[in-house]
Amino acid sequence: MDLYGKDFIVSQEWTKSQLDELLELAARMKRDRYSSRWTSILEHRTFFMFFYNPSVRTRQSFECAATELGGHAQFLEPKAMRLKTATTAGETIEDAAKVMARYACGLGIRILEDKVPHYGAGNELLREYAQWADIPILNMADDRFHPCQGMADVMGWAEWYGEGPGRPSYENLKGKNFLLTWASGALARSWCSVQEALLVASRFGMNVTISRPEGYDLDPEVYAWTHANCEANGRDFCVVDDPETGYDGAHVVYSRNWVTAGAYQDGEFQKKAEVEKAMAYPGWTTTAGRMARTDNAIFTHPMPIDRGSEVTDEVASGPRSAVYDVAENRLHVQKAVMALTMGNL
Amino acid sequence: MDLYGKDFIVSQEWTKSQLDELLELAARMKRDRYSSRWTSILEHRTFFMFFYNPSVRTRQSFECAATELGGHAQFLEPKAMRLKTATTAGETIEDAAKVMARYACGLGIRILEDKVPHYGAGNELLREYAQWADIPILNMADDRFHPCQGMADVMGWAEWYGEGPGRPSYENLKGKNFLLTWASGALARSWCSVQEALLVASRFGMNVTISRPEGYDLDPEVYAWTHANCEANGRDFCVVDDPETGYDGAHVVYSRNWVTAGAYQDGEFQKKAEVEKAMAYPGWTTTAGRMARTDNAIFTHPMPIDRGSEVTDEVASGPRSAVYDVAENRLHVQKAVMALTMGNL
Amino acid sequence: MDLYGKDFIVSQEWTKSQLDELLELAARMKRDRYSSRWTSILEHRTFFMFFYNPSVRTRQSFECAATELGGHAQFLEPKAMRLKTATTAGETIEDAAKVMARYACGLGIRILEDKVPHYGAGNELLREYAQWADIPILNMADDRFHPCQGMADVMGWAEWYGEGPGRPSYENLKGKNFLLTWASGALARSWCSVQEALLVASRFGMNVTISRPEGYDLDPEVYAWTHANCEANGRDFCVVDDPETGYDGAHVVYSRNWVTAGAYQDGEFQKKAEVEKAMAYPGWTTTAGRMARTDNAIFTHPMPIDRGSEVTDEVASGPRSAVYDVAENRLHVQKAVMALTMGNL
Repeated sequence: MDLYGKDFIVSQEWTKSQLDELLELAARMKRDRYSSRWTSILEHRTFFMFFYNPSVRTRQSFECAATELGGHAQFLEPKAMRLKTATTAGETIEDAAKVMARYACGLGIRILEDKVPHYGAGNELLREYAQWADIPILNMADDRFHPCQGMADVMGWAEWYGEGPGRPSYENLKGKNFLLTWASGALARSWCSVQEALLVASRFGMNVTISRPEGYDLDPEVYAWTHANCEANGRDFCVVDDPETGYDGAHVVYSRNWVTAGAYQDGEFQKKAEVEKAMAYPGWTTTAGRMARTDNAIFTHPMPIDRGSEVTDEVASGPRSAVYDVAENRLHVQKAVMALTMGNL
Repeated sequence: MDLYGKDFIVSQEWTKSQLDELLELAARMKRDRYSSRWTSILEHRTFFMFFYNPSVRTRQSFECAATELGGHAQFLEPKAMRLKTATTAGETIEDAAKVMARYACGLGIRILEDKVPHYGAGNELLREYAQWADIPILNMADDRFHPCQGMADVMGWAEWYGEGPGRPSYENLKGKNFLLTWASGALARSWCSVQEALLVASRFGMNVTISRPEGYDLDPEVYAWTHANCEANGRDFCVVDDPETGYDGAHVVYSRNWVTAGAYQDGEFQKKAEVEKAMAYPGWTTTAGRMARTDNAIFTHPMPIDRGSEVTDEVASGPRSAVYDVAENRLHVQKAVMALTMGNL
Repeated sequence: MDLYGKDFIVSQEWTKSQLDELLELAARMKRDRYSSRWTSILEHRTFFMFFYNPSVRTRQSFECAATELGGHAQFLEPKAMRLKTATTAGETIEDAAKVMARYACGLGIRILEDKVPHYGAGNELLREYAQWADIPILNMADDRFHPCQGMADVMGWAEWYGEGPGRPSYENLKGKNFLLTWASGALARSWCSVQEALLVASRFGMNVTISRPEGYDLDPEVYAWTHANCEANGRDFCVVDDPETGYDGAHVVYSRNWVTAGAYQDGEFQKKAEVEKAMAYPGWTTTAGRMARTDNAIFTHPMPIDRGSEVTDEVASGPRSAVYDVAENRLHVQKAVMALTMGNL
């Protein structure tokens, strides 16, 4: 199994066939959730979960995943660790990582924008752990990427365009239109989920449209990857400035608030300033009216949903909402990632 | 198994035969604690424990219970969740609950009076989770009820009036005299345990006496239920104002501090004011002298015990103290509840 | 199995043959880590971990140990418990311990110098738990001792002077020279690890040298035990005042910062004052130059390492560094302790 021992930091760094293998296993695990084929894969093994930022879904779904594979996920918070920082004595990441690799079969890390001094520093931290620990490092969301969310997203979309839960059709996603739209709200959200969604949608053969106000562009490298993915698949990638036209003909609508590229000032994430900036763009909300412009699109969101700002209740709880299915898929794709990278398959 | 999928929010909402079934299974589990009959009931399954308030016994006993049933209890604190409140954006209970139901086989919730704006709001929150989550919701103590404590109480009393640990006689409790007495102290305690004790004692055929200072009456609805339970069983229910006479002829003495009905002012639980009120009633302590008025009663308490205020050491650690047996029973009744409502029995 | 039910509070209170048995089992467990001989020893059992102080390695390694033995370690923090203190109402240790003994197969406790009013109070607390709980109490580091660290230390040294990982030779340690040297730094560290190292090195037949600045002597009782251990084995014990000469001819070098005997004033641990005192002794660092005076010694440290102050990177990450092996051994010795004191062997 060539994925054994491999880190999972961003989907773009895995080949398409590696992602396919992951998703194929996730679907089998979903169809037959407690099968004895899976329940001893991590038996008596420990997976460390390292939360620089707290979390709901990520903690719940990773800890469930380890349990369902027969293993145990340890919930760890670095605040309890005496880690070295720029200004305080403490343990180096080299030392922490090398010892953890002696105890555990894998290490998940979550670190978001408000815990780092500049964009990308969270992702760099993951890569520093990966450098020293010879066990797989799984990205449980950093300030750039959220690959497990991306996998859960595309699995959910493919189920809705396939034969339902556990029976996704990735073939049917090809040539479909994916809209990622910025959304109003006071949550000053990270780029990680939406950037991963761009990479995944483009990788799996969809046309990609981003709609956002001027000034809300994402990481240029992610745009470049998305563009390259679309080109390789013969699909289109475009960016629009208004909250309406992107919906035209869409098959999958993903709306979510996010911050500007100017979110860091003086080595700190300026949440308050970002909330104020976002206030200048009310009405970037996914409504039933806007959904009517689409080609009967499904609605997707990585949760938690800021209802009323990002999307109306009518859409979020409506008959074309994939949000709970996508959230459930976090469990299944994470089981598959853990099994492939750490398991005795 | 007709209890599969059922919520357990207050004992009064389960039929007597459902409670009997629960207690019968708890006793079997206690007699043969690690039997293979029980150890795979929750195998590879996750039970979420949701602690709005911290806890000792409840956390320990629920997490042990899941482990002994072969499953895993996840310890979750809502402070790590971005939940919507009256004043902040965040996730709705609908969204949180619906996703949790995809991951876990059950959800326990603990929320006490100091986390809610008015009496009953904690219980309402449990019912809101129950409305959205199609997995069992277990009450791990709210501001009104504590059904697992109630079950552990009555099992302990029935063991003391039966043939000992794991060999309770509920028949022998019928017609016995139960005294619930308010007690001095600076802990401003919740109503949940004592209200559940009233419901359970009356339900299982005991005569019920409450002794408390004027102004310390409990929830009128609980009094009404207790009264109805007693009447249905042909037993007596009475309330007395002094700290002595209630002991006369008692078989089970339960002493515990609690707050007045006026504990909430301006949407907040007024702990300090309640402690001051209680200071006006020193000497409401269970002593050996008072126990001498009883019919060789056992002493029971849901713990933690405020020794010196609620009860003297002589009684709490004496030969008729059931406190540790009752505490142990938390484990067994919770295993039984989880097995019946979530298990593959 | 005569260790069943036994507390492990300081290595000095176990006989040498009991320690030998523990270390023999630890090595077997390391050689064959996931053998089915070990993985059901704690099946369906709960081990409570009680952290008055947070921890990295201790928490990780104990929780892994329980998992690898088939059991579950519950992570508990006393701040969530309403325990009685000198000034607040709450639960007595008697009550807490007696109930925990009903739920769990063992209880680990960690309490360091900054959580207690005077030296030794942490150790006394462990003994109070041990008095009331009829399950084994394991010391996960207190203000005096850290027996699991001591066992991991000596196992690591014996592996380096034996045939490598899992193949220690305790015979080869006899007559070797052990240097414990105080080290510079701003961490104001506890005595527990270094005191346990003295006891263990002397117990296993090594000559012991302590080098430290005047005023940095450790617990006189530990010195007396170390002296007695050395004498019983026909070895030397000496204390030197300078940072250089102790290295001469050493086979195992252990450097670590620690506080003075005057660290407690007015019932509080004076961390800031201790850091200031330590600043008067820069240059007590283990360097390659100093290691050159030894008899090709290995370098050992209980971690976390304060690199640059306690030891240079060149030594800590050098070819004779045993630090990660020692850290790994925490897992194996703890599995062995748990198996012997709590398991169905």
